[in-house]
Amino acid sequence: QSSSVTLYGGIDLALAYYRGDGTGSRIQLVPGGNQNNRIGIRGREDLGGGLYAAFELEAGFNADNGTGLPTNTNNQANGTVLATPGTQGLTFNRRSIVSLGGDWGEVRLGRDYVPSFWPIYLYDPFRTGVGFGGVTIQGTTVTNLRASNSIGYFTPACGTPGCLNFFGQAMYAAGENQSSAAANSDGRTMGLRLGYGGEPWEVSIATTKTRAAAVGDFTQSSGGGSYGAKFGRLMALVGVNRTGLPVAVLNNGNRAPFWQVGAMIYAGPGYFPVAYTHVGRNDAQNSSASKIAFGYVYNLSKRTALYTTYAHIENKGALAIPVNVGADAGPTPLPGHPASGIDIGMRHTF
Amino acid sequence: QSSSVTLYGGIDLALAYYRGDGTGSRIQLVPGGNQNNRIGIRGREDLGGGLYAAFELEAGFNADNGTGLPTNTNNQANGTVLATPGTQGLTFNRRSIVSLGGDWGEVRLGRDYVPSFWPIYLYDPFRTGVGFGGVTIQGTTVTNLRASNSIGYFTPACGTPGCLNFFGQAMYAAGENQSSAAANSDGRTMGLRLGYGGEPWEVSIATTKTRAAAVGDFTQSSGGGSYGAKFGRLMALVGVNRTGLPVAVLNNGNRAPFWQVGAMIYAGPGYFPVAYTHVGRNDAQNSSASKIAFGYVYNLSKRTALYTTYAHIENKGALAIPVNVGADAGPTPLPGHPASGIDIGMRHTF
Amino acid sequence: QSSSVTLYGGIDLALAYYRGDGTGSRIQLVPGGNQNNRIGIRGREDLGGGLYAAFELEAGFNADNGTGLPTNTNNQANGTVLATPGTQGLTFNRRSIVSLGGDWGEVRLGRDYVPSFWPIYLYDPFRTGVGFGGVTIQGTTVTNLRASNSIGYFTPACGTPGCLNFFGQAMYAAGENQSSAAANSDGRTMGLRLGYGGEPWEVSIATTKTRAAAVGDFTQSSGGGSYGAKFGRLMALVGVNRTGLPVAVLNNGNRAPFWQVGAMIYAGPGYFPVAYTHVGRNDAQNSSASKIAFGYVYNLSKRTALYTTYAHIENKGALAIPVNVGADAGPTPLPGHPASGIDIGMRHTF
Repeated sequence: QSSSVTLYGGIDLALAYYRGDGTGSRIQLVPGGNQNNRIGIRGREDLGGGLYAAFELEAGFNADNGTGLPTNTNNQANGTVLATPGTQGLTFNRRSIVSLGGDWGEVRLGRDYVPSFWPIYLYDPFRTGVGFGGVTIQGTTVTNLRASNSIGYFTPACGTPGCLNFFGQAMYAAGENQSSAAANSDGRTMGLRLGYGGEPWEVSIATTKTRAAAVGDFTQSSGGGSYGAKFGRLMALVGVNRTGLPVAVLNNGNRAPFWQVGAMIYAGPGYFPVAYTHVGRNDAQNSSASKIAFGYVYNLSKRTALYTTYAHIENKGALAIPVNVGADAGPTPLPGHPASGIDIGMRHTF
Repeated sequence: QSSSVTLYGGIDLALAYYRGDGTGSRIQLVPGGNQNNRIGIRGREDLGGGLYAAFELEAGFNADNGTGLPTNTNNQANGTVLATPGTQGLTFNRRSIVSLGGDWGEVRLGRDYVPSFWPIYLYDPFRTGVGFGGVTIQGTTVTNLRASNSIGYFTPACGTPGCLNFFGQAMYAAGENQSSAAANSDGRTMGLRLGYGGEPWEVSIATTKTRAAAVGDFTQSSGGGSYGAKFGRLMALVGVNRTGLPVAVLNNGNRAPFWQVGAMIYAGPGYFPVAYTHVGRNDAQNSSASKIAFGYVYNLSKRTALYTTYAHIENKGALAIPVNVGADAGPTPLPGHPASGIDIGMRHTF
Repeated sequence: QSSSVTLYGGIDLALAYYRGDGTGSRIQLVPGGNQNNRIGIRGREDLGGGLYAAFELEAGFNADNGTGLPTNTNNQANGTVLATPGTQGLTFNRRSIVSLGGDWGEVRLGRDYVPSFWPIYLYDPFRTGVGFGGVTIQGTTVTNLRASNSIGYFTPACGTPGCLNFFGQAMYAAGENQSSAAANSDGRTMGLRLGYGGEPWEVSIATTKTRAAAVGDFTQSSGGGSYGAKFGRLMALVGVNRTGLPVAVLNNGNRAPFWQVGAMIYAGPGYFPVAYTHVGRNDAQNSSASKIAFGYVYNLSKRTALYTTYAHIENKGALAIPVNVGADAGPTPLPGHPASGIDIGMRHTF
């Protein structure tokens, strides 16, 4: 019963200085300036005849203070509540899956990334940190990254990151409400991703819909591609978050489109990530924000890098997007005012 | 100081459909349809002269969403409080023990299973999941599975599951109240198990008593046996939970007897588990419930299985037992009405 | 990306009997009678040219019931809140660091021990448990052991415990308040340690200051040394915790000095730890407390030991210090009354 299980992870910390125009600044030790902190266990068993079983349990954590990160139990807002400070323990919030795979593809059960997450992640040269393209995405819900209680199907050669050839992913996730409850479909999540993966280029599109009666359902759609040139990798990303009805969090709009162009330019033992991102929403002011971000990642080895990043956001209308998100967000600027930040840090994977 | 430590675990998820007569149904991704999800670390050091030191730290988790499970700190109801949704981190709720053993047996400190748990677990062909025999046990308390703050003794060859020959286990666990407190014995837990283990048959009986002044103490007694035939393994289990005084949770009764007959019938690369369980309580209506459960477990390897289970409960009187328990219980039927469920899932151990 | 990562830890449990004069007694299974319980992961990568990357993630836990321990997010009192009973999951509260080191020393990011912790730990023959010298330290704050959000520097050969030759450690940790907040320096922590390490003797002094406007800042200073003789190791420790302004927790004093003399006397396959500790505070009664503690640690192997400890505290004036601290503290005696305790336990590291 004991076996070859791999304990893996990544720890990434950066010293950061963030500003929000009109509201002040903050000096912080920021977790995940280049890659989110995680620790996980995974394994794979060959069952013969091309069949395999696999699992992955991955917990995120804040390396600056040692807390874990909460998960969501039912794909609805009431399935995540913030723990009191300092008390959040490790949960397998990033991934908790068991899979059965073969020539026919892979079936997967548990908590996993939703289909529409992948283009947003894959075609952003930052992926996380001060220059994270996704920072500015508006109108998100608890299932914009991952869903719990899910069943997924992946076409062959798509069970691990880097799907090859023509590929597809489908997901269904239960909201787990009792049939007699009002809005008993809430939290039910369905998504689809289609694409072509290879070298030097890959493209994909995806959509994820989460039932939520009060807002007329959430939908996140995304698509994009990347091209590997000799000097670097070019990326383009476009997408939209929407709700069926106008919602307060979008200032009574119901659509938040976004697009980004970016690149990773190879230079020395590392690369320059650079991205320009635009996000809007259909509120009365037609609010929007543009972000320019660039940095340098200096690889000390395959596993270890030093890096620095700079980002600047121009908010317009009612938008007041800070650099970075979550517990380590920068100060929220005044509406329509800019925000900026810089970090310098270290990433180590194991 | 670094050493041979084994990281082990099991992940088990099933798609389930549960019904409660008169109250509706629920579709869920259920953790632990065949075996509860766990991740653990254990090790053993040979100290020479037959002496050994050993430890085991095991955390349960909900593989459908990545949350951990709470533990209990003092063997009293106030030592466990439900965390807010999505925030429960990993605790070593299943086991946290260090042992010293030798020819004379094993002494064990920490959080461990109580003696009366073992017959209920060992002589039930299900053990967990939709057909779990223990699901219907009434009048339980926080120490019906495990106790914290315990000191245990096991006769030789009984330190690991599958005690051999004539064996015994004794446990004392502290409630850790200050001597000046009212009801300062509350939470103090004492238990004993005696049996004979071997092939083709084994038998054992056990009892665990937990002090609780307000209800006149909890007692759980259990006993049973199993017989290994060529075609399968036959099992019988009988037991009773009682309190000294009538309690509201037993509808003003104070006794909840239960019995079960079951079998695991070998067939192909797997087996059919089947069980009939009866539970009652001495309330004014003499309420009772009967459960029939059966399934099939198809082994893909020693470590991996696919399975399906069906269960049906007939409630009588004031009882309203749903299929399964905890966060992923099925809908509670109307009192005296039936409940049923079916699941199909995958179990993988590592 | 997978690599040589070491999973390590220690589990330690003792049966303890604690008394507080005038208030009663308590029988407990105490975690960490000889060494605090922990589980961790660490690794080190050789980057060539003398350069290395390293990390360490270490979670404390209560082995008597399986709960984890909370951490602190901002080096301020509001960055730690007690979780409800039984729900505290594992956090990397003990350590969460990534390092880059070379001939020039080591730079370290994350949650780590503050400089002034080290003399208090190194020059106490107990270190934890019923005889723990630090138990009686008064006027502590959340950063008296560790700080989150820190950047540290260690001179060469000081990155791991047991700094050699003339050494130094410096730490800066951010409070992470927004610049526009009142008391925005609160939680900012700075410390320094200097010493000489070697055989047979070592000495060091250290100080850590944590900004806290409401109390005029916290300062912990400590120093001491140890000498390795043939028959054992002798230790001396002196220090003071102070606040800028009188505080209620010090009974309207603002200084709590402490000193200790101790020894580990080798005998057979183990040693006798013995310590005499004195702590005072400058309140109106000039309250003070003296503690005598001794025991025996019997090594079954390098990794496993049995031990016993006895401690007695004489409180004077308004002080009412119990033996041991935290969730498993003994009963608090009446002010000016004695407290005592005894334990017998087992420690196992892996």
